This record gives sequence, C-alpha cells and structure tokens, in this order.
Amino acid sequence: MCMDVFFNPSSVAIIGATEKTGSVPGIILKNLLDMGFAGRIYPVNPKYREVFGLQCFPALSDISEEIALTVIAIPASFVLEIVKQQAQKGVHYAVIISAGFREMGAEGIQMEEDIRKVALENNIRIIGPNCLGVLDNYANFTTSFLSWERITKPKRGALSILSQSGAFAITVLDLAAQEGIGIAKMVNYGNRMDVGESDLLPFLKEDHHTKVVAIYMESVDHGRRFIEAAKACSREKPIVALKVGKGAAGVAAAKSHTGAIAGNYEIYKAAFLKAGIIEANGLEEFIDGIKALSMQSPPMGNKILIVTNGGGFGVIVADYCAQNGLEVTPPSPELKEKLKEKFAKFYVVNNPVDLTGSACDDDYRVVLQTCMVESDEYDAVIIIPLMSPKGMSEKIVSVIDETMKASGKPAVVCTVGGVFATKIKRLLEERHYPVYPSPERSAKAMGMLLERKMLQAH
Amino acid sequence: MCMDVFFNPSSVAIIGATEKTGSVPGIILKNLLDMGFAGRIYPVNPKYREVFGLQCFPALSDISEEIALTVIAIPASFVLEIVKQQAQKGVHYAVIISAGFREMGAEGIQMEEDIRKVALENNIRIIGPNCLGVLDNYANFTTSFLSWERITKPKRGALSILSQSGAFAITVLDLAAQEGIGIAKMVNYGNRMDVGESDLLPFLKEDHHTKVVAIYMESVDHGRRFIEAAKACSREKPIVALKVGKGAAGVAAAKSHTGAIAGNYEIYKAAFLKAGIIEANGLEEFIDGIKALSMQSPPMGNKILIVTNGGGFGVIVADYCAQNGLEVTPPSPELKEKLKEKFAKFYVVNNPVDLTGSACDDDYRVVLQTCMVESDEYDAVIIIPLMSPKGMSEKIVSVIDETMKASGKPAVVCTVGGVFATKIKRLLEERHYPVYPSPERSAKAMGMLLERKMLQAH
Repeated sequence: MCMDVFFNPSSVAIIGATEKTGSVPGIILKNLLDMGFAGRIYPVNPKYREVFGLQCFPALSDISEEIALTVIAIPASFVLEIVKQQAQKGVHYAVIISAGFREMGAEGIQMEEDIRKVALENNIRIIGPNCLGVLDNYANFTTSFLSWERITKPKRGALSILSQSGAFAITVLDLAAQEGIGIAKMVNYGNRMDVGESDLLPFLKEDHHTKVVAIYMESVDHGRRFIEAAKACSREKPIVALKVGKGAAGVAAAKSHTGAIAGNYEIYKAAFLKAGIIEANGLEEFIDGIKALSMQSPPMGNKILIVTNGGGFGVIVADYCAQNGLEVTPPSPELKEKLKEKFAKFYVVNNPVDLTGSACDDDYRVVLQTCMVESDEYDAVIIIPLMSPKGMSEKIVSVIDETMKASGKPAVVCTVGGVFATKIKRLLEERHYPVYPSPERSAKAMGMLLERKMLQAH
Repeated sequence: MCMDVFFNPSSVAIIGATEKTGSVPGIILKNLLDMGFAGRIYPVNPKYREVFGLQCFPALSDISEEIALTVIAIPASFVLEIVKQQAQKGVHYAVIISAGFREMGAEGIQMEEDIRKVALENNIRIIGPNCLGVLDNYANFTTSFLSWERITKPKRGALSILSQSGAFAITVLDLAAQEGIGIAKMVNYGNRMDVGESDLLPFLKEDHHTKVVAIYMESVDHGRRFIEAAKACSREKPIVALKVGKGAAGVAAAKSHTGAIAGNYEIYKAAFLKAGIIEANGLEEFIDGIKALSMQSPPMGNKILIVTNGGGFGVIVADYCAQNGLEVTPPSPELKEKLKEKFAKFYVVNNPVDLTGSACDDDYRVVLQTCMVESDEYDAVIIIPLMSPKGMSEKIVSVIDETMKASGKPAVVCTVGGVFATKIKRLLEERHYPVYPSPERSAKAMGMLLERKMLQAH
C-alpha cells in the first residue's frame, strides 16, 4: 500500500460529478481542473454524458481503464454502495468527503463500521469521512470543495500539514499564504476511519518536498505507532503539533466535532516529548513556529543578541527571551569597545543594542556585521527595526539579508505597525526571514528554533 | 497645579523652532500646526523673525504675553538655561523632549538634578526628559516629533495611554488606528524626572473623554501614591498595565533604556492586584485587552456560549475559555430542543454550537436570537464566523450587531484569514465589536472583560 496514490493518483474517479453550482462533487471536480492536475480524471454520474468537457460514466464499472482513487462526496447513506462498487472494480484507494458519520452518534458509527468491513476485506485504504481530503501543491492535485475565491492558495514550499479539522486545515493554508510560508502537502482526514497520522508520518518522512510537518490533533489514531512514526520522522524533519481538547470543555467540544476521544492531555504531552515533537500553545504559536522552522535553521546555542531602535521593545524581548531559554548575555568589553567606536554617544551599546530614534538602516549593518559576522559571541539574533524614524527605509531588508547570509546564523525579526511595516515584513519573508508583529512572539519563535536544536541533539 | 495645561495649554512656546527639515523642534511645530491646535503658538529662536508664518521671538523674555507651557527639544546641555529663563518669565509647565540625561549615566543624572532644583524652587512641573511628550486628540495638541507619514493617527475615542517608552507609545497609537480603537490622550514621560503615573492617573480619572487607561511601565514613580491613585481611578475606569523588565535580562535592558530600576516583579504583581489593575502579558495581550474594554462592557457572569462554523476553532476556544475562568456550560435540554427544531440534523447543537461548513449568516442570527436574546442561560458569547463557506457574507456584521444590541450582553469575535476576513473585522470594529485573529486571543480578551467585572465587584 502506498500513500502516494492519495496525492498523485494516475487516475481518479469523481463520484457524483456535475456542473451544477453548489454541488460538492461538482466543486471538487472544478477545483481539480482549475489546479491543472495532469492525471486522468473520470466523472461518474448516471445523469450526464459529459461534465466540464470530460466524458462522464454512469458507474465505476462502466470505466474500462484502471482507476487508482475514488473521491466520494455524496450523502452518507449512499457511500457504502460506492465502496462496494469500487471493491469490485479493484480500486484500492478512496477519499470520503461526506459528513454524517461517527460525529452524528450511534447510527453514523454503524455506517462507518459497515464501510470499514468492506474496505478491510478488499484492501481499500480510506481518507475521511467528514473531511476535505488532500492537497498536493506539486502534483496539482486536490479533493477540497472550498473555493479559492475567499482564501489565498499558498505558493509551493516545504511545509506539509496533517489536520483532523477541515476548517483548521484551510485556515492554516490561508495564513501560510499571508505569512509567506510555502506548502508541499495538506491532508485533512476528519473522522479518520482508516488513514491517520501513523500512516502519513512515515510517508512525509520520505517525501522530498516536505521539510517541516505541522499536525492539528484532537486525538491520535494509534498511540504506540504514532510515537514510533513521529520519532523516526522528527529525527530528520521538525514536527510542530497543536493538540486541542485539553480541558473538560475542549474534550466535550472535540467529541461533538469529529467524534474524537481527546483523552488525557498529560499523556499527550509526554508522548510529544518522547517523539521529539515541538508542541505549540494556540493557533498563533503554531503558525509562528512552522514559519520560523520553514525559513531559518536552528541556532547552534542559546546566546541571543537583541538589536532594536525602540528601547521599550528591546526590554520586552529581553523579558521573553528569558522565559524561552534564550540567554541575553552582554557583549564582551572588546566587542562593546568595537561598537562604541562606530556609534554616537547616546546609542546604548549593550544587549539589547538600542540604536534609539536616531537610527538609520546602516547602523543595523554595523551591529550585525560587528557582532554576528566578525564575532562568535552570539548564536542568533532578534532584530526589531521600528520603521517610524526617518532614517529607516526599505534598505533594512538588504542590510539584514546580506549580513545574516554572511554570518550563517539564524535571525528572526519583529516589526510592529501599519502599512509600511507590512511591506517590510513581506520583503523580508520573501527572503526567508520570519517576521513577527510583537516582541513576545519573536522571542517565542526563536525559542522554538532553539527547541528544535535541543531535540536534534538528543 | 493642573495637569490640564500639558494637554490643552492656552499658549505654548516652542524653543528652537525652525523650518529646517530634520530639526526636532521644527517637526514638533509642524505637527502641531498640522493638527489644527487652536491655542496661541510662539516659536522661540534668535535666528529667525518668522517660522511657518508665525512671528518668532529671540527669547522667552521677548514675549510680552503670558506663556502656559514650553516645549524644549534642544541638546541636553542647553536645557537648564531654558528652564531658568522660563522660571524668570513665570512659565510653570515644560515638556522636555531632549535625550541625553539619566539614561546616559552619572553626568546625565547630574544634569537632571540641576534642572529639578530650579523647577522645585520655581514651581515648574516637567514632563520628560527623553520623551515624545503628549498627544491630546480632542484639543488637537501634540509635542510629538514623529511624522504621521509612517504611522496612522488614530481617531478620537475613549482610550488614554501612559508610557515610559516613546517607541511603545507610538506603536500603540499606530496599532490602535489599525484595530479601530479611538484615542483620547497619550503621554510619554521617558525619564520621568517629575510628572509620572501618580500625577496623571488622578487627572485621567476626572477626564471625561477617557474611559479606559493603558499603562506601559518599566518602573513606577512613587509606589504608595501610585497604588492609591490607581485604586481610585480603577474604581471608575478599567486600567490595563504592561509591566516590562521582569527577569534579570529585562531589568538590565530597562536600566539602559530609561534609567529605570525595574525592581522586583512580584511586588508589582501584588501592587497591581491591590490597585485593581488588569495586567497584560505581552504587547498583543495589552492591545487585545484595551480593545475589548474600549468596545464592550464586562459580562454579568462567566457563562460563555461559543458559536462557530469551524468545529476545530470551537474546540480551541473551549480549551482557552477554561484557562481564563470562563465556563462553557452546555445548553439546557429546553434550549437545545428549541435550536434543534430550527437546524439541519448535522448541525452540532451543544456548546460550542457548530454550524459546520454549511452555515449561512442567518444560522448565526437563529443561535444568537435564541440563546442570547430569548434566553438568559449565557452571560456573553464568543462568535467565530469563518468566512470561507459560500453561505457566509458581509451580512454577518448586521446579524451580530442587531442580535447583540437586543441582548444587551457582550460579544467578542474571532475570525481568521485573509482579505475578506479583514474586511469583516473592520466593519465589526466600526460597530464596536472587538475582533481577534486567533481563538486563544478571543478567549483571553473575554477573560479580561470578566476580570474587569470581578475587580468592579471587589
């Protein structure tokens, strides 16, 4: 069995395909065509002879060619029959989009059991039900039924996402696009009646497009297998997880959502630690962490320099560095002397280096060149260029890029504010420097890079 | 002595005024003229007879009219002389913008001491030095030397800001504009050689434009006076504080920044509790809290309903509600029955109410009308409308506004994503519903509203 078929099938049948607006199988087919998928596509619907210019077949059995994968997005009560038909036709993979199963209670659980039985007897692997299925940004393949009008499709990149929640998966794609994070693959398995984290992690470990893995988790498929799979994968690629359903209220909500038994949070915490997984606290920390890990390498140690032209921001970052295991050590007397020679008397040459409201772009170059390129006192730097003073311009982007490339050390950037700050953020993120809108989040992101380093050293 | 003179002086002298670009006193004068300040303005500079069309005077003593306030933004070593001159002229208020004092070490401390002596002997009150001074959004008065080209000036409103850090004060103004928070007054006192929190809180307590007070604090001016002033003020108006310089690294950074002795954080924590101050953890929580408190009233109790069309988001909010003292109680059987009658079978009628990917705007109306207007089971609601499904439109704004107004209960909103979500956020915030970009921040903001309620009940 090969998970690859789910992401890049040689041929796919879309059950219930139609051109009718608002029909889920219709939107899936439309999305797939819009993406420019290169494999063969077979619409299946007894009502039509052609859909979106493709020949449409009354039933799976009417297709003479081999089919690698079915996409099933018809009402729940009809799904079992389709799975039986695909068993006869010898199709070994299915993505079941339809909702109305386990999450609805006893009757839905029985329907899942009936499908599972047929699947087991016939070697059929299933993603879903109650899900959006997959997106492969390199194979141009998707089973998603959400329109790209309201959410931005992210560019190709290094991040792959595993998510029990569909809304969450889509939101992460949308935020990834906003934050300049490139995407390789996305899988949303919803009720997860078969394929889950334990099957997908070994696959992503081998996938050469995937460099970072992100998991949204209400529950886990198989405790022991998951830990083994995650441990093996995290040895090579960082894994960031967001576990939800922590307290009683969240556990109850998760059960209503995907029928998940969210279980004892302390057990999850221990499992993540064992498996080398970086745990995020909340949606923003999740996005912040995968952004840092997608864009920068972990630092070799925990000595952090802070450079800013907003003293108050330096103070806040220093506070939060301490909370994240980062050491804000003062520069050596020699390094201090070197800097002082180059700066006005009222610049504060310490750690943080405070370039004050008089700062210009090239002051940042002096600090980064002197402290990060020509010296080895620091392992990484948090740069906080506030853009309101007149001396600050777009040039800060090349200043950071040139000096940090020469240093070979990681940097994260914090810049706060409106339109101009947003432009600087976009330009820096195009060059793979992660930018955060608050001092505390930039310190936390650097902390997550360091956490990755420590997990690797383990 | 009346703090009002600092915000709305009948007449102000700008020392060193010039039309030269890049000169600090020149920019201050330009900003003041641009704001449309209605009081009398006197440029002072022996080099010119006219500046920006206003008569310019060689010295303070050459002005025959009374002067209420001086604004001093000339090099530190010349400031003492100006203060002496204003003592002779009988000017009792000064904003000293100039840097180069206490934050530079022993010599700077001595310069401050010399100025303090003259001020004390002559009943002169001083804001600064090393600061931006004040902004009064109703009197159209400012002493800020930052240009409004790169930061957005916020609209008039209910929030007043006290800040030791200038960069921080400006950033909060910029973020306030972005987040739809209206501003009454801003004071940045930098080295705070005289006027500080203990003088300004009693003034803001009486200021009828100010409804919420925000404080950025590295250290406090007078421990006991501050607690008394804050206690009196917080009885009427919520105060949110961000204390920075918490750990050793932050304390050292604060000392370099404004010469502040940041002191033992535990003592601050106890003082905040005693004074009825809501403490924020980080810049974003600070902005999130003042936004919630500026826009919504505290809930009468801690029973929270969660409504969403993204199940996973409901689960995360439920987790974070528990962490913030908010109870996510299930609806009563009667309320559940009432909702179920109105909805499709696969909607999850529980708490969270999960309207699924099939949700439309009017489903939200049904839930809010039934649970918040017609029932008293819940004290407040967190609404999480994800905008990607086709059934969701701009109409959600009026749905929320109409039902929540009818309920008389507070709401906070979470919506995540790109361009469309940003539009919905702006429209909701114009109607005073605070919107947050993550589930954890929406739960925390509601928690801060509840905290205000509990402090009031104290």
